[in-house]
Amino acid sequence: MDYNKRSSVSTVPNTGPIRVGFIGLSSFKGWAIKTHYPAILQLSSQFQITALYNPDIGTALSTIRTLKLSNATAYSTLESFASSANVDMIVLSIQVSKNFETLIPLLEYSKTNPNLKYLFVEWALACSVQEAETIYKMAAERGLQTIISLQGRKSPYILRAKELIHEGYIGDINSIEIAGNGGWYGYERLQKSPSYIYELGKGVDLVTTAFGHTIDLLQYMTGSYFSRINSMVFNNIPEQDVIDEHGNRTGQRVSKTVPDHLLFQGTLLNGNVPVSCSFKGGKPTKKFTKNLVIDIHGTKGDLKLEGDAGFAEMSNLVLYYSGIRANDYPVTNNNNSNGNDSTNNNNNGPNGYDAGKEIMEVYHLRNYNAVNGNIFRLYQSIADFHFNTKQIPHLPTQFIMQGFEFEGFPTLMDALILHRLVDNVYRSNILGSTLDVSSICRYP
Amino acid sequence: MDYNKRSSVSTVPNTGPIRVGFIGLSSFKGWAIKTHYPAILQLSSQFQITALYNPDIGTALSTIRTLKLSNATAYSTLESFASSANVDMIVLSIQVSKNFETLIPLLEYSKTNPNLKYLFVEWALACSVQEAETIYKMAAERGLQTIISLQGRKSPYILRAKELIHEGYIGDINSIEIAGNGGWYGYERLQKSPSYIYELGKGVDLVTTAFGHTIDLLQYMTGSYFSRINSMVFNNIPEQDVIDEHGNRTGQRVSKTVPDHLLFQGTLLNGNVPVSCSFKGGKPTKKFTKNLVIDIHGTKGDLKLEGDAGFAEMSNLVLYYSGIRANDYPVTNNNNSNGNDSTNNNNNGPNGYDAGKEIMEVYHLRNYNAVNGNIFRLYQSIADFHFNTKQIPHLPTQFIMQGFEFEGFPTLMDALILHRLVDNVYRSNILGSTLDVSSICRYP
Repeated sequence: MDYNKRSSVSTVPNTGPIRVGFIGLSSFKGWAIKTHYPAILQLSSQFQITALYNPDIGTALSTIRTLKLSNATAYSTLESFASSANVDMIVLSIQVSKNFETLIPLLEYSKTNPNLKYLFVEWALACSVQEAETIYKMAAERGLQTIISLQGRKSPYILRAKELIHEGYIGDINSIEIAGNGGWYGYERLQKSPSYIYELGKGVDLVTTAFGHTIDLLQYMTGSYFSRINSMVFNNIPEQDVIDEHGNRTGQRVSKTVPDHLLFQGTLLNGNVPVSCSFKGGKPTKKFTKNLVIDIHGTKGDLKLEGDAGFAEMSNLVLYYSGIRANDYPVTNNNNSNGNDSTNNNNNGPNGYDAGKEIMEVYHLRNYNAVNGNIFRLYQSIADFHFNTKQIPHLPTQFIMQGFEFEGFPTLMDALILHRLVDNVYRSNILGSTLDVSSICRYP
Repeated sequence: MDYNKRSSVSTVPNTGPIRVGFIGLSSFKGWAIKTHYPAILQLSSQFQITALYNPDIGTALSTIRTLKLSNATAYSTLESFASSANVDMIVLSIQVSKNFETLIPLLEYSKTNPNLKYLFVEWALACSVQEAETIYKMAAERGLQTIISLQGRKSPYILRAKELIHEGYIGDINSIEIAGNGGWYGYERLQKSPSYIYELGKGVDLVTTAFGHTIDLLQYMTGSYFSRINSMVFNNIPEQDVIDEHGNRTGQRVSKTVPDHLLFQGTLLNGNVPVSCSFKGGKPTKKFTKNLVIDIHGTKGDLKLEGDAGFAEMSNLVLYYSGIRANDYPVTNNNNSNGNDSTNNNNNGPNGYDAGKEIMEVYHLRNYNAVNGNIFRLYQSIADFHFNTKQIPHLPTQFIMQGFEFEGFPTLMDALILHRLVDNVYRSNILGSTLDVSSICRYP
């Protein structure tokens, strides 16, 4: 098991830390302060925040003061921020709908920063597959190593499941079922919720976010993209009741244009495996099952992932495994299976599968904080790559995509492929067609 | 609750029993002797076997002797059997692939039997929707009251679930998920299994049988047909290993043309409800979930049906209900929901839904034998209709279809609608299209 071995970033690297220029970090609120910032703080020998961009310079300065970012400079223009030679990696963590208008000039201006090596963007990359493709191309032309925060790929549960599948513990995959509940797209809306998460086209919705992350993880675990897919997208709850922080209705009703239900089914390229998948929004949440269930049935064992919320990338999960240990597979003895050898056959069972050797295992880290844990592990893998902490011989200085490798991290190319899948999900619904998606992993 | 009240067939009717002419009853083997025969035996004041058809007259005579059918005559030709005036109801329980060639002459010959009133056929009615339509029309022209053995509609679990939905116990249906495991369509085949159940076009397969029965029950419970559907049908296991009765491989491999996996998704006509459904074949069966799971999520409660096999119509099930009692619904008070009334609102919760009043119930008849229990209840409902044991005023002497009524029993029209759905499932897969099925319940 060379892959997936423990990160060595606890070692202090010989070279200086990766200098991070951040767009979207505020000490007041938001995702970055809860997830990216603790990761950078824990990896302080590997990462150092040296620049903050905010058009409101006061906010940037205040964040620097509050977080005591003694090495950081505040920038109020994209041009000055992007061209600062004091930055090795730019992290973008803002509303998806602002990504395109920010990244295009940023990448242009950044040409004057000779040290810039990494660009780290939150999923979703953009509001449309066209925008995503443009961003991808510009970043590639700029020669940057990119990172997309499909951070569920770093979840210990996902990696363990991937490992069990990869090592043959469940045999060939026979079929897969996924059911998720994407919390907030329901009958009610919290008054304090930002309205953009209920507006279609803003890059944050049940399909792009809840389904997007989860199906990326499914592909990553199984090591296969889809060959054909069909989907039906529903907005059955076009109006929501606004509720206050106590759960009381305010009497206000507001319109919702993002979907609240998704039916998706498809076939994995590898093995023509049927995948049934549904995501729903709306409370009451499910009573008799978890809000996230991924069932993977194999010829020699089963895997089940369960989570309390339909957001696999930031939920603490439970992984169940049932099957027989790979090393315990009885030697198959087909030549003797002519009836003369029925005693032996009886021992091993009809499939060379001995039910007596069946085991069940449960993987669960009781106190794992998946919200920042997976982001932390993503930063860890960037450091592993940058400092080659695993001392991998001939490690390239760049790679285009992670694909289904254990090592590395997802890139904008991985993001682009996922954007194409999401785009096909919406198209399948509109066209009323089953679509061939077997070539969406091509380069632009 | 007028519907679904206890059958009164234990009362001895004033008129004589329904005289049954049976095709496919053999004391040696088969489905009929295990299911139809015990039902008729238990309802001996309501049903009496008076005729047996078998081209091999010896088998018919032997069955009459063995079962001591003292009132029964053996017939070796369809013509003599069908024209016998001593028969009120013909029951057909043979291989589906023989239904059409049997029913067409049977219906023709039966014109000389003035007493024939009922025709009872096993599901599936025929091998194709065209054949089913022809049979339906001939039986209608012949003026017969028909019965199809979609017997799951008589399952106490299905009826209780239907009742809970009908009476508003779960509010509006929000989404539905179904996952079934259709046992035998897997990697292995028992040597003694008849080969026709593995050959496509014989009317017995994962889609027609396992899915067909289950989706009929879903429609029946929810009271809605589908508006649009999409499906993908798989034959991922085109060859099976033959195993003997001890579970040992014989070394023989045989071809299989019926599907082993089905992905189905669709939208209910009523409420545009998303339905996600998958059926799989093949062992190992599921480790972490039951082989049949139907999850129905409502705005005010959830229902879950579980069974040990993907054959809802002949499995003993467990029905779980979570929600609030219909009679306990707090009075909705929307006019006051302007914030001035927050104390009251707090009591009732944001949806007029009081979590404190939430209850959970489990329905399970531990020793219920669903294999013949549901068939028995189907016979019971025929007797209820024939003798009007529930003393329903103005009960018509015939009805075309059961549709979604609690009373009555499914007819060939119900069967025809289901055949059309099954046909569309296969067509959707071949065409790669989402299909509009909103008009499949039209009369021919």
